[in-house]
Amino acid sequence: MHDLAHNEDTIIALATPQGIGAIGVIRLSGQSSISLVNKVFKGKDLERQESHTIHFGTIRDGDKILDEVLVSLFIAPKSFTKENVVEISCHGSNFIIRQVIQVFIRKGARPAKPGEFTKRAFMNGQFDLAQAEAVADLINADSEAAHHAALNQMRGGFSGEIKHLREELIHFASMIELELDFGEEDVEFASREDLKKLVNRLLEVINALIHSFDLGNVIKNGVPTVIAGKPNAGKSTLLNALLNEEKAIVSDIAGTTRDFIEDELIIGGVAFRFIDTAGLRETKDTIEAIGVERTQAKMKQASLIIYLFDLADTSTVEMNKEINRLENTGVPFLKLGNKLDKVDDTLVESLQSQHPDMLFLSAKEPEQVEILKERILELVNLDKFKRGDTVVTNIRHYDSLLQTKNSLEAVINGIDGSVTNDFVAMDIRRALHYLGEITGEITTDDLLANIFSKFCIGK
Amino acid sequence: MHDLAHNEDTIIALATPQGIGAIGVIRLSGQSSISLVNKVFKGKDLERQESHTIHFGTIRDGDKILDEVLVSLFIAPKSFTKENVVEISCHGSNFIIRQVIQVFIRKGARPAKPGEFTKRAFMNGQFDLAQAEAVADLINADSEAAHHAALNQMRGGFSGEIKHLREELIHFASMIELELDFGEEDVEFASREDLKKLVNRLLEVINALIHSFDLGNVIKNGVPTVIAGKPNAGKSTLLNALLNEEKAIVSDIAGTTRDFIEDELIIGGVAFRFIDTAGLRETKDTIEAIGVERTQAKMKQASLIIYLFDLADTSTVEMNKEINRLENTGVPFLKLGNKLDKVDDTLVESLQSQHPDMLFLSAKEPEQVEILKERILELVNLDKFKRGDTVVTNIRHYDSLLQTKNSLEAVINGIDGSVTNDFVAMDIRRALHYLGEITGEITTDDLLANIFSKFCIGK
Repeated sequence: MHDLAHNEDTIIALATPQGIGAIGVIRLSGQSSISLVNKVFKGKDLERQESHTIHFGTIRDGDKILDEVLVSLFIAPKSFTKENVVEISCHGSNFIIRQVIQVFIRKGARPAKPGEFTKRAFMNGQFDLAQAEAVADLINADSEAAHHAALNQMRGGFSGEIKHLREELIHFASMIELELDFGEEDVEFASREDLKKLVNRLLEVINALIHSFDLGNVIKNGVPTVIAGKPNAGKSTLLNALLNEEKAIVSDIAGTTRDFIEDELIIGGVAFRFIDTAGLRETKDTIEAIGVERTQAKMKQASLIIYLFDLADTSTVEMNKEINRLENTGVPFLKLGNKLDKVDDTLVESLQSQHPDMLFLSAKEPEQVEILKERILELVNLDKFKRGDTVVTNIRHYDSLLQTKNSLEAVINGIDGSVTNDFVAMDIRRALHYLGEITGEITTDDLLANIFSKFCIGK
Repeated sequence: MHDLAHNEDTIIALATPQGIGAIGVIRLSGQSSISLVNKVFKGKDLERQESHTIHFGTIRDGDKILDEVLVSLFIAPKSFTKENVVEISCHGSNFIIRQVIQVFIRKGARPAKPGEFTKRAFMNGQFDLAQAEAVADLINADSEAAHHAALNQMRGGFSGEIKHLREELIHFASMIELELDFGEEDVEFASREDLKKLVNRLLEVINALIHSFDLGNVIKNGVPTVIAGKPNAGKSTLLNALLNEEKAIVSDIAGTTRDFIEDELIIGGVAFRFIDTAGLRETKDTIEAIGVERTQAKMKQASLIIYLFDLADTSTVEMNKEINRLENTGVPFLKLGNKLDKVDDTLVESLQSQHPDMLFLSAKEPEQVEILKERILELVNLDKFKRGDTVVTNIRHYDSLLQTKNSLEAVINGIDGSVTNDFVAMDIRRALHYLGEITGEITTDDLLANIFSKFCIGK
């Protein structure tokens, strides 16, 4: 595997985020990375040091000192890319980082493309394509569920299962190709019954993976949720109560930025993404106005609607009308009777008998908001997502799985319909192709370019 | 020195900037940092590894894997803080970083205060206070001059010189204190002539350092510059021509953020900071309106005014009036005759003879903008700032130097005026105190708290 590295140039990029920090880490990878760094590093002779060691010294541009740095060495193949890798930990100034990267570019390194380090790791056999993609997912994961799914996939995930099934299928494919070689002779090296059993077993696994994507998608991107209700039903109060709780958790660690989860809420490790909540917070839309196309579209984008009724200001007739309209959206919804503190028990008991699934609370009470959270979690039905379960979160994998499924169903139909062997063989080859796309046994330059261009630079 | 570490708890912080990146580095420092990391790290036994080595493994919270990481070990006193230091390089996800920091806090680490790592380095004798302060300056430096000044100070700078002079002064002080012990007896252990010589030598050095602050301040904070002129003289064109050039340089490295230098321009490694340039770009202020207080105040904040004349639309009389007003601001200014392409040579020759220091150009021509840059650099007179020169950039040091100067002048006056020894001794002690404040021989908790609170977290 490592021989590949001989043909590669040395790539360089900042591996840590842009901005002011105590340190910044610049990463180089390539056969010549260590000798390249050695040219501008004053300290020990880096080419005589062991892998996984750290060395203090200065980076110089001619006789000008750019920075005092720590240099970490990873000697091929014991590195992320399986090439020689050097990580330079310098002071976290944009000026210094720019200067250091520029001096290396003048010495022959080349700025890395997005995801190029991970691409090299994949090309050099560090991991398969699905695992490489999980690296990017892991970095972007901002909830426990998304993190768990990405880490699980990065550490192997369904890759092993798919590879195993693919190998069995390859075995059958070669038998059938062999039969084709015998042309008109009526030989059958591969038992059609055994092939059907294998394909059905494959289909079972693949259907389960396809099915898991609904879940995987919300795990990765958050459950699109809308909080709706008439004006003054308490939507803002509820959202703030939920968000403030989250704020408190996040600010445990001083300096943690919250910008990117402004309208995202993690409940029980699952991200809930509020669609255009800001707009909804201002809007005067009522259930009567649901007919307005824009609002309805918004509702339908949601995987979950939390609908608030102001118990103190809603007639039973009106409520039933609103629920009826909600049911017509086809989206799962949670009926919430708010302002419990403002009404008497008789009303609540009467409503409860009519709507056993309605939750009654006062959005201002923290412990009642906790109960709401449990109900929300129940509604999105994440029970299926247990630790260790395999979940497909990547739409590319999902597409390949759908194509594999089609091909495998064609194989079954082909056998049952007694079509000629070359059609069966063709469908098997198609299935193998799509399965191989997931883990990267089958790749094209376009596919790889498309995948890695979505990575951040430095990964 | 290292014994100090025994009393310290383990501090933890993210050392790299917030945001999405390939990796994030979490830093721990303290006597127990390695054993603490060992508790949640699955891989080699970290307590049995050598300093400056890197180890692959996983960080776990119970049986839950948080991330695959690389752990770097720095065993006391061979570390930045001179304590045991561990750096954990994990995937650059905010979620992971939060989780990892939280698991360590549960295990007994404490979030580091801003600058606390550097403060420990100072307390443990890694460097003096002026050097510690230079670490923060280095991180914030965004021009070559500022970077050079900070790096020079971090690597020793004037600390050595000040320490040396202070020691000599201490020697005299002890002699004079000894004389005081002899009370009424008329002994003189310290030659007053030698003392005066030393103090004058000290004053010479200190005056030079004080003088260097004017330069140090513009090096650190940028040269406050105003581009002025009548409407349509070409101010925006000129600024854009200058800024676009800079943009091109910055964007050599993909992903480099330019936000923080929106109105800053690096010319020849020196930062030029445009005061309220946005406002000036829009404003209709002409030289006739300079009387307006706000504009004049703006002009006076500047260290440099670049004044544009539209050659095609300015009479000689008008020009002389404008120049006269400019001279009254007391701020150095550069007269620029713009739109050279629109006028004939006769006018230019006539103006040139009247105003030999006027620069004629067309702001649209890149090579002419280069000539302007050279002239700007000449005007701010940075010749004094040669490589290796000592420059004071820190206002705290500047204040201490001024106080030292006052005390030393009082010493000279005391000797000349033949005041009693205790007054001379007191003034020497004051001078020693202020000198000691610079390098940190003399510190108070307030002073240290004030200095390190300006650092970023993780440094």
